This record gives sequence, structure tokens and C-alpha cells, in this order.
Amino acid sequence: MLEEALNALRKGKFVIIYDGGKREGECDLVMHARFASPRDIEILRKNAGGLICLATGGEVAKALRLPFMSDLLLSSPALSGISCRKTPYGDKPAFSIAVNHRRTYTGITDADRSLTIREFARVVEKGNGARKEFLRNFYSPGHVHLLIGRGLGERRGHTELALVLASLARMPPVMVVCEMLGKGKALPFKEALSYAKENGIPIIKGKDIYESWSC
Amino acid sequence: MLEEALNALRKGKFVIIYDGGKREGECDLVMHARFASPRDIEILRKNAGGLICLATGGEVAKALRLPFMSDLLLSSPALSGISCRKTPYGDKPAFSIAVNHRRTYTGITDADRSLTIREFARVVEKGNGARKEFLRNFYSPGHVHLLIGRGLGERRGHTELALVLASLARMPPVMVVCEMLGKGKALPFKEALSYAKENGIPIIKGKDIYESWSC
Repeated sequence: MLEEALNALRKGKFVIIYDGGKREGECDLVMHARFASPRDIEILRKNAGGLICLATGGEVAKALRLPFMSDLLLSSPALSGISCRKTPYGDKPAFSIAVNHRRTYTGITDADRSLTIREFARVVEKGNGARKEFLRNFYSPGHVHLLIGRGLGERRGHTELALVLASLARMPPVMVVCEMLGKGKALPFKEALSYAKENGIPIIKGKDIYESWSC
Repeated sequence: MLEEALNALRKGKFVIIYDGGKREGECDLVMHARFASPRDIEILRKNAGGLICLATGGEVAKALRLPFMSDLLLSSPALSGISCRKTPYGDKPAFSIAVNHRRTYTGITDADRSLTIREFARVVEKGNGARKEFLRNFYSPGHVHLLIGRGLGERRGHTELALVLASLARMPPVMVVCEMLGKGKALPFKEALSYAKENGIPIIKGKDIYESWSC
């Protein structure tokens, strides 16, 4: 199943990642950011329903000087008391800032979020001069939420799992992730399995990604 | 139509606000936060499709010491260069921080977002001691985006328009707002009109709210 997932990623298609019942018990619909079209954003908001986020790695965050939002809040006297140190399932949060590309209008439409995501992927792939281009072409607050992976050694969230998938597919660390929601709660694994089957989407468990990574 | 909209709000029902073609040209599906049930969150994510945000007024923000996100970024040396001073349509952004209530799990499910929103409404309605209760029961980053109204004198966005509706309905300043999206772009006004008609939802234009407010 891993090879099937990596092939889907390389072709710009969706993959579903299930993190396991001991953590969020949640499936995320993910894809590589390079390919995110307006139609993909429509699918994410209609068929997944969570926050449409853009996960990137610690090295990119360092190059772009992206902070964890929790650290940013901690540094503000009025807000340090509200800063989340740990989520209810024991992880530190992955959220950084939210951005729009300068060529978007409201930032929220399928066309706008797709542009922000693909242009951010381009900045990540650029390497040298990325920070300068990032500052020139993006602003915050915006409508695409950046997440920073902490590495699978520290955290086994969808952020880290998606980034390991990108790495196993030999693609740059920039992945779109969105929680799949069901009636009132997270979409049950069984229902995600049916959706995956109906739509020809590979579905992969966190522990299988973790095992491939730690081998 | 204004009376119809105010009655809908008081009953915990949806209202659609169109800001006008000179601004975002966008319809938002809005309701008073006090009543936001998990089913309402499901409707917002499926039938509107934008970010599910929680708008409150400047006085509440002051009492809770909530900053504008743009000001928070400006105060950070690494991020001041990316802070948005004005959106492409000329307004300052309304975003503050994003929160979860402590009793949520992932924070993103319909049940969790509904809880965060209703409990935030309770804090706003409380008045005295609100800041203490806010710090005790909420954390950030989370999955419900707080917006701060700048007042209709300064800005005529959905945030300000929704808050004026709450005030005209003699309800506390805490409103759920979510952008209505169409294929690739904002939902055209005509399509919003059809949706409103099919679902018995009052639809009101920004200029009509503005005129009632300035009278």
C-alpha cells in the first residue's frame, strides 16, 4: 500500500492517512502542495471538511523564519496564559501563521487557496533566496494555515506523517492536509475506507508510515 | 427584510449578508454564536465552505486582551515584514487568534467547534470576570478563528455588518460568520439568493445594514 500511496502523491493525487485510535483517531485527506488545483480545494472542503492546512518541515520553517504560533503567543505578555503547550492527546500543536499569496483577492476562494498553496510550494522548492521571495509574495494573516512538522521522532501527527510520505516519494516537504469529518465527529475509519475505495484513493495507517521511516 | 433578519437571529437561525460588489462581492452565512449547534457547523462547512469564524466587538477584545493578529506579527522582528496592513480591497484584516475550548478533543469536529463557539458566547455574555474565565477555559492556537470588528465607521466587512445585526437584534456582540463559496470563486449573489429562497434564509445587503445603523 505504501508504494501505491507514493505513486499517487507523485501523480498529484490524494492519499488518506489514518493516525490511529491512540491519537486523534482521525483520517486526513492529503496531497502534495505542488499540484493543488482549485478543484482539489473544492474536494477538500466538501469531502473532508476540516481546516485546509499546508504542512512543511522544520528546515523550511527555519529558512523562512516561521515560528510555532504557540511560541509567538508565549512571547506576548497578554497572551502567554492562553498559549497551548500540549493538546488533549499529548502533542504540542503544529500551527504556525496563516498566509495568503499577494495575487489573491479575498484569499478564501478555491482559486485563491490553490494559488497560495502552489506558490508556497514553489518557494519551498526554490531553496536559495526563499525567505526573500516569501516576504515579497505572501502576507499574514491569511486563509491557508501553515503547519510545521516536528519530526516523527517527536510527534506522530498527520503533519509529520504527511511530510514523511513526501520524503519517501522524494518530493519537497510541502503537503496539503485536511481533516475528514463525519456527522458531528471525526469520520470513522470504516467510512473513510469506503470513500477511499469509491474514489480510488490509497489509504495508509500512521504505523505503516512510521515503520517505513524507521527502517 | 431587516426585521426578518433580526427575527431569524433571535431564533438562532441563519442570515445571509452580502457586502456589495465594491468590496469582496461576497455572501457570508451568519448566525448568533449562542445557538451554534453541531448541525449548524455541518451546514456552514458543507453549504458555505469558507473559514468558520467567530466575530466579536472591540470592547470584548479589549476586556479579553485579544490582539489583532496583524499587530501581533508586527511586534515580532522576524514577522513584521509579512504582516498585512491592508487587504487588496483596502481594509485592514479582522483576524485575531484562533481558539479551542478546553473540553474539546481535536477541536475541529462539528461537536468541538460548536462547543468552542457557544462557550465563547457564554464568556462574552458574562461580562465581569470574562478575561479570567477566557484564560481558564480556552487555549490557542485552535480551530475557531476569532475576528475583531473595527466598527462600521471604519470598516464595512462581514465582521462589522454581522455585529451591527446582533446589536440591532439587541443581542451580545458574538456572531458566527462563514464565506459562501462557489465553483472556484465566491458564490455569485444570484446563487446565494436561490439558496436563501430554498432554505427560507433572509438575505440582506451591507448597505441596508449600514443605513439602519447610521440612522
